[in-house]
Amino acid sequence: MTSKIRIGLLGLGTVGTGVVKIVLSPEGRHPLVSEVSLKKIAVKDLKRSRDKEIPSHLLTDDPMNVVEDPDIDLVVEVIGGIEPARTLILKAISLGKSVVTANKAVIARYGDEIANAAKANNVYVLIEGAVGGGIPIVEPLKQSLGGNKLKKISGIINGTTNYILSRMSLEGANFDDVLEEAQKLGFAESDPTADVDGLDAADKLSILSGLAFGGTIERSLVPTKGIRNLQSSDIEYANELGYDIKLLAIAESLSDKSNKETQLALRVEPTLIEKNHPLAKVSGVNNAILVEGSPIGEVMFYGPGAGAGPTASAVVADILNIASERITREGKNCLNPLLSASQWSKCVLVKPSEIIQKNYLRLITNDSPGVIGKIGKIFGENNVSIKSIVQFDSSESVAEIVVITHKGIQGQMMRSIEEIKNLSVVIKIASHLGCL
Amino acid sequence: MTSKIRIGLLGLGTVGTGVVKIVLSPEGRHPLVSEVSLKKIAVKDLKRSRDKEIPSHLLTDDPMNVVEDPDIDLVVEVIGGIEPARTLILKAISLGKSVVTANKAVIARYGDEIANAAKANNVYVLIEGAVGGGIPIVEPLKQSLGGNKLKKISGIINGTTNYILSRMSLEGANFDDVLEEAQKLGFAESDPTADVDGLDAADKLSILSGLAFGGTIERSLVPTKGIRNLQSSDIEYANELGYDIKLLAIAESLSDKSNKETQLALRVEPTLIEKNHPLAKVSGVNNAILVEGSPIGEVMFYGPGAGAGPTASAVVADILNIASERITREGKNCLNPLLSASQWSKCVLVKPSEIIQKNYLRLITNDSPGVIGKIGKIFGENNVSIKSIVQFDSSESVAEIVVITHKGIQGQMMRSIEEIKNLSVVIKIASHLGCL
Repeated sequence: MTSKIRIGLLGLGTVGTGVVKIVLSPEGRHPLVSEVSLKKIAVKDLKRSRDKEIPSHLLTDDPMNVVEDPDIDLVVEVIGGIEPARTLILKAISLGKSVVTANKAVIARYGDEIANAAKANNVYVLIEGAVGGGIPIVEPLKQSLGGNKLKKISGIINGTTNYILSRMSLEGANFDDVLEEAQKLGFAESDPTADVDGLDAADKLSILSGLAFGGTIERSLVPTKGIRNLQSSDIEYANELGYDIKLLAIAESLSDKSNKETQLALRVEPTLIEKNHPLAKVSGVNNAILVEGSPIGEVMFYGPGAGAGPTASAVVADILNIASERITREGKNCLNPLLSASQWSKCVLVKPSEIIQKNYLRLITNDSPGVIGKIGKIFGENNVSIKSIVQFDSSESVAEIVVITHKGIQGQMMRSIEEIKNLSVVIKIASHLGCL
Repeated sequence: MTSKIRIGLLGLGTVGTGVVKIVLSPEGRHPLVSEVSLKKIAVKDLKRSRDKEIPSHLLTDDPMNVVEDPDIDLVVEVIGGIEPARTLILKAISLGKSVVTANKAVIARYGDEIANAAKANNVYVLIEGAVGGGIPIVEPLKQSLGGNKLKKISGIINGTTNYILSRMSLEGANFDDVLEEAQKLGFAESDPTADVDGLDAADKLSILSGLAFGGTIERSLVPTKGIRNLQSSDIEYANELGYDIKLLAIAESLSDKSNKETQLALRVEPTLIEKNHPLAKVSGVNNAILVEGSPIGEVMFYGPGAGAGPTASAVVADILNIASERITREGKNCLNPLLSASQWSKCVLVKPSEIIQKNYLRLITNDSPGVIGKIGKIFGENNVSIKSIVQFDSSESVAEIVVITHKGIQGQMMRSIEEIKNLSVVIKIASHLGCL
């Protein structure tokens, strides 16, 4: 129908490599992925040894050559940092090319300059990968929540600090020790400043606030406090009082309707959260963003906030958005393939007996010796592996036995149940539930 | 720039009323909301008394008249149920009009017929409100996650049953009693069949599976078990073994790469979940959908799964999507206003002293009588309201005092801290954190 969209990739670190892997293996993904054609990849060092999946004939060490290539429609920037990323992005825009970037630092600081250039040149700059890794949060803020008056965003948007805080809380350990171990395990950088001092979270908060409240956020004015000075005694006392401590990034609108301008209270700081709050349950390197608005109430987005795969997923989502816009625009009477109902697979539901899952089974039996042995034997003969089998307190001569199985084929489970039913010691199968 | 998009609304129940309220008060929402013009509203009974915000001159009791009106571009169906919804949707499509619907029953059963008609007539049928209420889940599955091979969806997608199960678990109460109370409180329908027998969840699972795996799902083949026969003893035993029980809707791809067709295992059933699993923490009428795929890993969407406001938010999101497509298509060199970086507000960051929040303060003081009184007095004089003030065990003559405040203006908090610092009994301010 239309020509493929031709991509120039700037940067081949973990995220860039993740993007290449997705684009080169379209099977099983949205059919639009196969409309993406990778033309050139700019790397720092041509000599470095790489994954054999990487098409080495596309590599160049001149990123400007990628941006300026007239055979490239869309520039994907995953170098990170301010320069040369900013210059390359602006150059691509000036040449009428749309840009996809996961670069929070450059968008938080030069977002306005870049957005104005994009508008003037009639191109898109999409940034799903810049905040929250793989979590779809930019697109929901731009599209799905547009009917709301947004009130507040509260997010755990830095995985490194959340990992450190989770371990400090669990182990009662102090900051320096956990940081050192996080660095050894690769969860923290050798220079951890941007993460532990809250600067990375403040970059992302600026971006989210601009999207949610529709205005320019002056990045340098965001009050920012990291976790470097947080003491384990505060975590301990907070715990005793019913709270967890998380590094939160918060943006809140203080405006009532009468104001012309939107008054925003922004801050990044270690914050107590009641233990039953949805954000309190976000542990390890995960991120979560809670959005409050009217009339929606509260909605939360949760997932892996960083990493090659998740961030590449977000970058590819943006690439597909731009590809779909192009198809809609070029084709006559052509629907946007991401919005229209599209089918690309023949789905067949397997029979209930072919489902593979864990099970919970409760039996009422006579309280006689050897019951558990008899039940266990039947499961064994049917190839159903048992995780636990527990006899609960029961009245008089009757026993209640609860079995939890490992994952298995339901047909084998059903056969086991039929045979167990026929045991003379078994009075009845009281319940049979699934187990995740 | 372009003409407004003209809406005909079918149905004015809670969701329909919610949609009208959003469309008629665009201030503070995405600027595209003001491009929506409400032309006609079909209701069942013209004589019923209504909210005075409803523009009564738009009402009609002839829905086909709305669908056929040549001045209407887009039909929004929020009547629910199979008929006349299906006929009206198909008629609108045949007239070349796009449709937005929140009707899970009709989409789960006639989704293919409707999608084929939409394709033939080159129009969109968008269904964000049909699953998960206000939670953006349809759009992420269609757009944001397109780069992934999706593996599994596990969701709590029926609020009524989740409310009943949460109460059964908390109170050790039995199903019939909790259902009766849920009906009194309006959390369950007088005929609760569709909810408690899992039929509503199976409708939604069919829709989600079709979107995630890109194929037709035969609704009648979804194995479905509700919670009507769930006994409180199972919840109790599950608890003792470290699990909660939720009504889960699960769709899992069993296919490996070599298969031409996608083998799916679907089921709706009460399911044990380990207590530290993200889905186990979803309580009350909330919904949550966990999506697993490669390379993203796991991502979860959480929020209000039903209700006038949330569902209206989803319906309006779809309206905006269609409006933006129209603008992009009509305008020359015009960017999609939902994808391009748009600003509609002047955002001003307030000074740190103007932020309004709760606080946590830890002080090291002399362990002398009256310390807490002196601290309390200073907070009182500065209008800072205290939630709790606790003296923790401490060594020798030194005491640690932790104060948690209610919400207040940070300037007053900062003044209090300055004054407290100057008290002779106070050795130092050991820490000052935020509190959500």
